Amino acid sequence: MLWPLPHGIETPALVVDRETLVANLDAMAGRIREAGVALRPHAKTHKSVEVGALQLARGAAGLTVASLGEAEVFADAGCGDLFIAYPLYVPPAKVDRLRRLAERVRLSVGLDSLEAAGRLSASGMAGRLEVLVEIDSGQHRSGVRPEVAGELASRCREMALRVVGVFTHGGHGYHDRSAPPGAAADERAALETAAAALSRHGIEPVRVSAGSTPTAVASASGAVNEERPGTYVFNDRQQVELGTTTLDHVAAAVVATVVSTAVDGQVVLDAGSKALSSDRPAWLSHHGIVPELADAPVTALSECHGLVSLPPGVSARVGTVVRVVPNHVCPVVNLFDHYDVVSNGVVVDRWPVSARGHLT
Amino acid sequence: MLWPLPHGIETPALVVDRETLVANLDAMAGRIREAGVALRPHAKTHKSVEVGALQLARGAAGLTVASLGEAEVFADAGCGDLFIAYPLYVPPAKVDRLRRLAERVRLSVGLDSLEAAGRLSASGMAGRLEVLVEIDSGQHRSGVRPEVAGELASRCREMALRVVGVFTHGGHGYHDRSAPPGAAADERAALETAAAALSRHGIEPVRVSAGSTPTAVASASGAVNEERPGTYVFNDRQQVELGTTTLDHVAAAVVATVVSTAVDGQVVLDAGSKALSSDRPAWLSHHGIVPELADAPVTALSECHGLVSLPPGVSARVGTVVRVVPNHVCPVVNLFDHYDVVSNGVVVDRWPVSARGHLT
Repeated sequence: MLWPLPHGIETPALVVDRETLVANLDAMAGRIREAGVALRPHAKTHKSVEVGALQLARGAAGLTVASLGEAEVFADAGCGDLFIAYPLYVPPAKVDRLRRLAERVRLSVGLDSLEAAGRLSASGMAGRLEVLVEIDSGQHRSGVRPEVAGELASRCREMALRVVGVFTHGGHGYHDRSAPPGAAADERAALETAAAALSRHGIEPVRVSAGSTPTAVASASGAVNEERPGTYVFNDRQQVELGTTTLDHVAAAVVATVVSTAVDGQVVLDAGSKALSSDRPAWLSHHGIVPELADAPVTALSECHGLVSLPPGVSARVGTVVRVVPNHVCPVVNLFDHYDVVSNGVVVDRWPVSARGHLT
Repeated sequence: MLWPLPHGIETPALVVDRETLVANLDAMAGRIREAGVALRPHAKTHKSVEVGALQLARGAAGLTVASLGEAEVFADAGCGDLFIAYPLYVPPAKVDRLRRLAERVRLSVGLDSLEAAGRLSASGMAGRLEVLVEIDSGQHRSGVRPEVAGELASRCREMALRVVGVFTHGGHGYHDRSAPPGAAADERAALETAAAALSRHGIEPVRVSAGSTPTAVASASGAVNEERPGTYVFNDRQQVELGTTTLDHVAAAVVATVVSTAVDGQVVLDAGSKALSSDRPAWLSHHGIVPELADAPVTALSECHGLVSLPPGVSARVGTVVRVVPNHVCPVVNLFDHYDVVSNGVVVDRWPVSARGHLT
């Protein structure tokens, strides 16, 4: 971190430092290439066709997204290989959209239920889709137990779906500071069990896909042949606290202005929960830190107010411009319509957050 | 609550029941009229020019907003009287926007610092603006102590600013279930002290403005002559738990689909923190409730996953459509591009969330 702040922009603003971003993209592409697996970055973090293009230019096999709507945005931008890594359920109201998408890109989708499989089969697109069965590797959010993956895959095949592999998200790697190594091992073990279960049912697991920034490199071995990290493009306070990265690799921040100093011991920024989100892991206090104010914490949020508790000896006047390193950058990006892209402290570009709001 | 859910919409969707909304608008307009004070609803909740028009049609004196950008949206829609109830700091980059706005509407703005006053004065718009001094009535967020309001107002007058009154937000009324009555009394007492302080400096406090949904009716007496509630238009789980309203007056919900039942004891909805926000007061557990599943709680959120813990005997299949009553509706609205407006379970209109993302 500690790229220079731009001058004269209207706040609150989502600012990304181009050089830090490019360094993060290069580093992950290099590490995953060295591990000998495919990189299919999750675009839910950046929602930006510009960042997606930079990832594809560095050898990404395709992009991962979380919804049909996000897939449409990246397809419109020319990305030809998309994976909806989500238990996709396609009701009749969405069938036409699925059809149009599957006709123009190589599309793979996740599922973990017979109901979802049935809807995909009924869509008439079974022959145009690749299906990956979602596995629960320990987060206990979605995904079937690895040992029953073969059975679900077999039922999918009976519905004329083309099952090409298994995927998981070791989200329990975010559970606390000590969690990432165990979660990476869990991802690998669960995927290997599930891949073997597919093989036993005569289905070749071509894609065996793990994914999260804290586990991306550590799980890239054995049967695993694809990684789907997302947050690494920008990083955030949570990644720093997890030990995944350091503050000097945080590429995005919310730039804000001090608007009130009326209450002793604190200043108020014009960035509240509508700019920083309220996301906070249970193990992490506060809503972000302010490097320009001696890493002072954002201790409370209203919708348009961020309260910063001042350390002894630190002060700031109304009008002072600072940055906040947010806890979790993904929902923050989702609150803005565009990025101000800076290089050496000068705004050099403005990128839309193209897939923002494409939830359905 | 418990207006009928619409069929066939793509989820997650922000749905508002027209009849419940209109009843909420009528009820607050009636109660504030009976109290004999002006109603200037805070539009940050709905960000909708359609809802704003319904409020003005019911006698609202004008609208309250939180930013220059929100004010621009409502001015564009024809609202002629806007109050930016925020400690507004106008750097050189924003002066032209302030000027264009002040030239076409009656504009009042908040401030609590000499720095902000200096910038307003330097904008050349001092004669076209009305200024209200912000008072801290106990939330300790922004606003000066009531007893020094006269001094700040006097300094503003020396800078040729037209101070017309004082305002406060008794946000500590959200502190816990017992807080609203005390916060309402604090608002009234602080505003009366501040108004008297202005009078002592020879400045007539024409507007004495309080505001929040939990305190709006209770603080509408004495010197207070304006109320600025926001959330009452839709209500939410927090308002129900505070005792401000009941579930049958909740007009907005996030409609979602069950997408996974793979992990025992829970179902996963396609509404996560990017549809429900992570806002949660410290005194309230969980991230919303699901009336269609016996008021089951949303116990955990990922960005696109909402985990619902099922009570004994309750189950749901993948594909089931339900609603979530969110904790805090304001940041939820801010995540969507439009409302699906329903009447008797049928979608009858689509309203844009016009001021979404207008943070600056």
